[in-house]
Amino acid sequence: MVRSAARTTDVEVRIELKPGVIDAEAESVEKSLGLLGIAPVPRVSTARIFVLRFPGVSRREARRLAEEAVERLLANPVIHRVTVHPIEPA
Amino acid sequence: MVRSAARTTDVEVRIELKPGVIDAEAESVEKSLGLLGIAPVPRVSTARIFVLRFPGVSRREARRLAEEAVERLLANPVIHRVTVHPIEPA
Repeated sequence: MVRSAARTTDVEVRIELKPGVIDAEAESVEKSLGLLGIAPVPRVSTARIFVLRFPGVSRREARRLAEEAVERLLANPVIHRVTVHPIEPA
Repeated sequence: MVRSAARTTDVEVRIELKPGVIDAEAESVEKSLGLLGIAPVPRVSTARIFVLRFPGVSRREARRLAEEAVERLLANPVIHRVTVHPIEPA
């Protein structure tokens, strides 16, 4: 594996709802699973993943750019809890 | 940690689009990141996560129930690639 500053870096951004924020999609899934007869019905929570693949930047720079993308576009700090971490490219 | 059959088990279901299926949300994010001046613009892909928390079932049973939920409700095998794996409860 080449560990140069110029390799491709994937950063995974995971966006969840903060505790206390209603997760309407999760509630809908729980209800549907119950209606389908799946037992026990699980408690459901949802998250949204964005994988950002940066060409030719270091892990450190990719993380910084991903955090900027989160702040300026992807997440709403009032309702979202966000984790950002570089991953090995698939 | 108690490894009994009756503990709570969390199963994470990750739903992605199959290669070749247009990811409209990802394309929209790429475009917006470019307009915001983030450089280099990353390639974006998205995924949806459902965490299913089953009370009082074994990991094996929880995985089976989650796979049933995927087949009957959560995913469309024509367009989705799905991974299902038990995780440690948060």
